[in-house]
Amino acid sequence: MKIAFIGLGNMGGPMARLVLQAGFDVIVYNRTAAKAEPLRELGAKVAVTPGEAAARADIMVTMLADEAALRDILDGRDGAVAHLPRGALHIGMSTVSVAFSAQLAKRHADLDQAYLAAPVFGRPDAAAAKKLWVLAAGRADDIKRARPVLESMGQGVLEVGDDPAQANTMKLAGNYMIAGMLQSLGESFALVRKAGMPAAQFFDIVNKVFKSPVYENYGGQIAAERFSPPGFKMRLGLKDMRLVLAAADASETPMPLASLLHDRMLSAAARGMGDLDWSALGRLAAQDAGLSLEKT
Amino acid sequence: MKIAFIGLGNMGGPMARLVLQAGFDVIVYNRTAAKAEPLRELGAKVAVTPGEAAARADIMVTMLADEAALRDILDGRDGAVAHLPRGALHIGMSTVSVAFSAQLAKRHADLDQAYLAAPVFGRPDAAAAKKLWVLAAGRADDIKRARPVLESMGQGVLEVGDDPAQANTMKLAGNYMIAGMLQSLGESFALVRKAGMPAAQFFDIVNKVFKSPVYENYGGQIAAERFSPPGFKMRLGLKDMRLVLAAADASETPMPLASLLHDRMLSAAARGMGDLDWSALGRLAAQDAGLSLEKT
Amino acid sequence: MKIAFIGLGNMGGPMARLVLQAGFDVIVYNRTAAKAEPLRELGAKVAVTPGEAAARADIMVTMLADEAALRDILDGRDGAVAHLPRGALHIGMSTVSVAFSAQLAKRHADLDQAYLAAPVFGRPDAAAAKKLWVLAAGRADDIKRARPVLESMGQGVLEVGDDPAQANTMKLAGNYMIAGMLQSLGESFALVRKAGMPAAQFFDIVNKVFKSPVYENYGGQIAAERFSPPGFKMRLGLKDMRLVLAAADASETPMPLASLLHDRMLSAAARGMGDLDWSALGRLAAQDAGLSLEKT
Amino acid sequence: MKIAFIGLGNMGGPMARLVLQAGFDVIVYNRTAAKAEPLRELGAKVAVTPGEAAARADIMVTMLADEAALRDILDGRDGAVAHLPRGALHIGMSTVSVAFSAQLAKRHADLDQAYLAAPVFGRPDAAAAKKLWVLAAGRADDIKRARPVLESMGQGVLEVGDDPAQANTMKLAGNYMIAGMLQSLGESFALVRKAGMPAAQFFDIVNKVFKSPVYENYGGQIAAERFSPPGFKMRLGLKDMRLVLAAADASETPMPLASLLHDRMLSAAARGMGDLDWSALGRLAAQDAGLSLEKT
Repeated sequence: MKIAFIGLGNMGGPMARLVLQAGFDVIVYNRTAAKAEPLRELGAKVAVTPGEAAARADIMVTMLADEAALRDILDGRDGAVAHLPRGALHIGMSTVSVAFSAQLAKRHADLDQAYLAAPVFGRPDAAAAKKLWVLAAGRADDIKRARPVLESMGQGVLEVGDDPAQANTMKLAGNYMIAGMLQSLGESFALVRKAGMPAAQFFDIVNKVFKSPVYENYGGQIAAERFSPPGFKMRLGLKDMRLVLAAADASETPMPLASLLHDRMLSAAARGMGDLDWSALGRLAAQDAGLSLEKT
Repeated sequence: MKIAFIGLGNMGGPMARLVLQAGFDVIVYNRTAAKAEPLRELGAKVAVTPGEAAARADIMVTMLADEAALRDILDGRDGAVAHLPRGALHIGMSTVSVAFSAQLAKRHADLDQAYLAAPVFGRPDAAAAKKLWVLAAGRADDIKRARPVLESMGQGVLEVGDDPAQANTMKLAGNYMIAGMLQSLGESFALVRKAGMPAAQFFDIVNKVFKSPVYENYGGQIAAERFSPPGFKMRLGLKDMRLVLAAADASETPMPLASLLHDRMLSAAARGMGDLDWSALGRLAAQDAGLSLEKT
Repeated sequence: MKIAFIGLGNMGGPMARLVLQAGFDVIVYNRTAAKAEPLRELGAKVAVTPGEAAARADIMVTMLADEAALRDILDGRDGAVAHLPRGALHIGMSTVSVAFSAQLAKRHADLDQAYLAAPVFGRPDAAAAKKLWVLAAGRADDIKRARPVLESMGQGVLEVGDDPAQANTMKLAGNYMIAGMLQSLGESFALVRKAGMPAAQFFDIVNKVFKSPVYENYGGQIAAERFSPPGFKMRLGLKDMRLVLAAADASETPMPLASLLHDRMLSAAARGMGDLDWSALGRLAAQDAGLSLEKT
Repeated sequence: MKIAFIGLGNMGGPMARLVLQAGFDVIVYNRTAAKAEPLRELGAKVAVTPGEAAARADIMVTMLADEAALRDILDGRDGAVAHLPRGALHIGMSTVSVAFSAQLAKRHADLDQAYLAAPVFGRPDAAAAKKLWVLAAGRADDIKRARPVLESMGQGVLEVGDDPAQANTMKLAGNYMIAGMLQSLGESFALVRKAGMPAAQFFDIVNKVFKSPVYENYGGQIAAERFSPPGFKMRLGLKDMRLVLAAADASETPMPLASLLHDRMLSAAARGMGDLDWSALGRLAAQDAGLSLEKT
C-alpha cells in the first residue's frame, strides 16, 4: 500500500517516521524540503510537489499547522486533490474547522475520492513516542482501510462517527478542555502565590487529586515558568479557540468559557506571548495579578 | 487519645466511623441527634452539646457544611471553643473561608489551644471508602500529633504549610478547579450534542485522553443527566466560589474563570437547581443551548 | 443625478423615500418586489434586477440586512457591480464586516468605480423621521459627491476617515456599545426587581443621571417587557457581535465585554428569542435570575 | 434646624459648604481636623468627636469614603449613634452595602432614631457645582423633613422607596452601569486605535449618538489618557463592584457584566492603577491590546 504523507513539521515529521517504520511504502512532501531529508534517509521517497506525492497514493495523509497551509497543499495546479487517484483515501489529520472539513468531504465525494478526518491528541514528544490518540470519523470501510496506518501512529484509534466533521468537532472540544485546564492552573497558581505559597505545593495536590497527565505536563511547565521552546504555540491555541467558537456559533451553543479562553489568548498574543507555549496562559494570569515573572 | 468528632453529615458521618474503627476513643456530637446513633452502636460516646464533646478531648475534629454551621458549634455558652482544654488540638476539616480560618487560628492561640486546618478532597462515597485526600496546615508538631487521626480518614495526608489558612486557600483553589472541569464538560457536551453526536462518545475520548477520575465521575453524571441525589450540592459549590473570590479579592488576584463559575452557579440556583449536584452545571449549559432535557 | 437604491427593508424603505423626496431621480430594486410599490407611487422607477438598477446610476446606494444579502445583490450575472458604470459611486450603508468592506473597496477600485462606506446609527422609526446619523469614510471627493444624498437621509453626516473600512469598524464599535447598554440595563433591572422594587423606578434614575436617548428608548422597552415587533432583531445583533469580534480578532484586541455580549445573544437565540428585539437581553437577564416574565 | 455634617472629604467638603450656604446651623466633624477649617471660616461650628457633632443635631448627615470609615464614625464611646438624640434623623449619604444599610436602619429604629439612605450620583466637581443627584429612601415623613437639606446639595432629589436599603441598591446599580460604560469605551477605543484611527474620532460619534454627559466626561478622560488626579479612585470603584456583587449574590441575581467589571478593576489594582481614576479601565484595555501608553 502506497502512502503519501504531506506535512513534516513538529507533528507530521515524527508521525511520518512511524508510518515508514511500520513498513509502508511512503512518499513524503514538505514545503521546506530540508525537513524531508531525515525521512529520505529512512527509505521514504521525496516528492517535489504535493501533486506528485498524491498521484500514486492509495492513502494520502495530510498533517499541516493550520487551514491555510492545508489549502495550499490541496489546491492549485500541482495540488494534492487534483492528482489524488479516484478511489484513493485522504486522511486529514490537521486541526481544522468543522465547516472546512465538511466542505472537503463534499469535494472529495464529488471526485470519487474517499475522505476521513483523523485529528490527534498529543504534542510533538507524544508523537515521537507513538503516544498520540487518533480520532477517526468517516465511512466504516474507509476507517477499516485506514486503520493499519492510523494505528502505526499512536496508542489508539477512537472511532467517533461516520461524518468526518464530527471528528473535528470533538478534536476542537478536546483542545478547548485542555485550554480550560491551563487557565484554571494559571489562576490557581496566581492565587496561591499571592497568598505566599509556592505554586509547586499546590501543583503537588493537583497531581494527587486529579491524576491527569495533562495537568501534570502543563502544571509543571507553568510552575517552572518554562514556556519556550513551545510544544504548541499560543497562536495555534488561539486559532483553535476561534474554530471552537465558530462551531459553537454555527450550532447556537453558548460557550462562555471558550469565549474567556479566546480573550485570554488574544490578550497573550497582543502582549507578545504569541510564540510561547500556550501554557503561558499561566504567565498571563500571574502578570494580571501583578506578580513579577521570577520563578517561585 | 480522646477524640471529639463534631458534625456527622454526609461527610462527617463516614469520617467519624473511620476514626472510631481505627481504635480511637471517640465522643461525637451532631445537631440532629439521630445521626449520632449509628456511631453510638459502633462504640462512640454521644454528647448532648458541643461543649460536652470538647470538654475532655485531646483532639477535636469539626466537619460542618459551612461557616455558619461551624460558628454555631464553636461559639456560645455550650460552644466547643470555650470548653476545649488548654493544649488540646482543634482540627478544622470544614471548607471555610481563608479569613475565617485565620481568625480561628488567632482565637485558639489566645486560649493556648492548638489549631490545624485540614480540609479534604473527595465526596461522601470517597469518605466512606477511605479515599479522601487530607490537606493539613499548621505547626509541625501539631501535624505530627494529628497524623494518626488524619491518616485513619483518607488515602493520604498532604502537608501544605505552617499557617492553617494556607490549607483553606488550597482547598478552595482545588474546588475551583473541579468546578472548571464541570463547566468545560458541560459546554463540550452541549456543543457535541448540538452537532448531532451523543455526549457519551465525547466523554469516552475525555477519559482516554485526560485520564482523570474527576472527569470520569462527573462526566458520567452529566452524560447520564443524573444530578440527584446530590453528592455535593450546587448551593455548596456556589458558597465555595464565593469563598474563592473573597480570597482572590483580598489578595488582588483576578480570577475571571472563578467569576464565570460563580455566575453560572448563581444562575443555576436562581433557576431552581440549587439542591441538585453541582455537576448540574452541565444541565445549565444544555438549557442555555436550547437543548431539551431528554437524555442523549 | 441618478440614484440607484437597492434594498427596501425596514431601514432601506424609509431611507429611499427620503432620497426621493429630496428631489433625486431614483431607481429602486428589492428582491421582494412588492416593497418597491410604495416608492413607485412616489415617483421612483423600479428595476427588475440589481444590474438594471445599477446600469445607469451616478450613485448606487445599498442597504441590506446582512453581508449575504449584499453579496447576492452585488455578484453574479445581473449583479450590481458588473453593471455599475465606470466612475460611478457605490455608497454601502449596510452593516458589514470590516474585512468585507476592505475587499469591496479593492474590487471597485480595480473596476474604476468609486466606493464609500456609510453605515448609519438609528432604528426604523429614526430612519422614517430623518433622524439617522450617517458615518462616511472614503476619498474626500467621493464624500463630497455623496453628501447631498447622505444628508437627505439623516440628521447629520460624520466623516470618519479616508479608508472605507474605518466607517465599518466604527459602526460595529457603536453597536457593541449599545449592546453593552442593553446588557447593563438588563442586569440592573433584574437586581432591582429581585430586591423588591419596580424596574421603572430605577429606569427613572437612569434617565435623570445618564440622559441618553439610547437608554431611554431601550430601557422603556425592557421595563415594559415589549420586545415585539422588533426594531432590530436579536439575530442581527448577534451577527454584529460576531463582526465586532472578527475585527477584534484580526487586530489582536481583546474585548471581553464583546465576548460576553456575543454569548448572551447566542444564548437568547438558542432559547427562542432570535426574532425578538435585541433589547430582549433584558428578558434573558430576568430569566437567568429566575424571575417570571410578568411585568413589574 | 441644627445639622451635624460628618465627613469632609472630596465629596463631603463641598456638600457641607452648600448646606451651610443654604442657611442651616451646621456643626461639622472630620477625622483630619484641617479639612474642617474652611468651613469654620464660613460659619460652621467644628466638633472634636463624632459624638459631639451628633449630640445636639436635629439631622445628622454622614458622607464617608467607605463602610469602614463610616463604622469608625458611628460606633464606639464617642461615636455618633450613641450621642444622636432620640427622634433625630440620620441621613446616610455614603455608598455602602445594601446589607449594612439594612442593619443601620434596624439599629436606629431600636434607638428611636430616624434613618434615611440618601446616596448621590456625581463626582467632586459636580458636588461643588450643586449638580449632584440625590436618591432618598426611607419613611415618607423623614424624607419630607430631610428634603430642604438634601435639596441644598444637588440638582434634584429622587425618592426611591420607603426602605432605606433600596436607595443603596439603586446607587450601586447606577455605579455598576457607569463602570460598564467605562469598560465599553475602553474596549472600543482600543479597537479603533488598533485599526489605525484616533480614539477621539470615535469619541465624537459616541457623543453625537449617545448624548450622555457620562460618556462625554469619561470618554474625554480616556481619549486624553488623563487618569490623575482621580475624581473617583479605581479602588473605590472596585469596592462598589464588590458591593454590587454581594447584593446580587444575596438575591440570587447573576450579573456577568458586574463580574467582568470586578475582574477588570481587580486587575487594574493589582497592576498598579488602584489610585488612578476608575476610567483607567480604558488604560487597562489598551495595555491588554498591546498598545503603548502614548496618547492618540
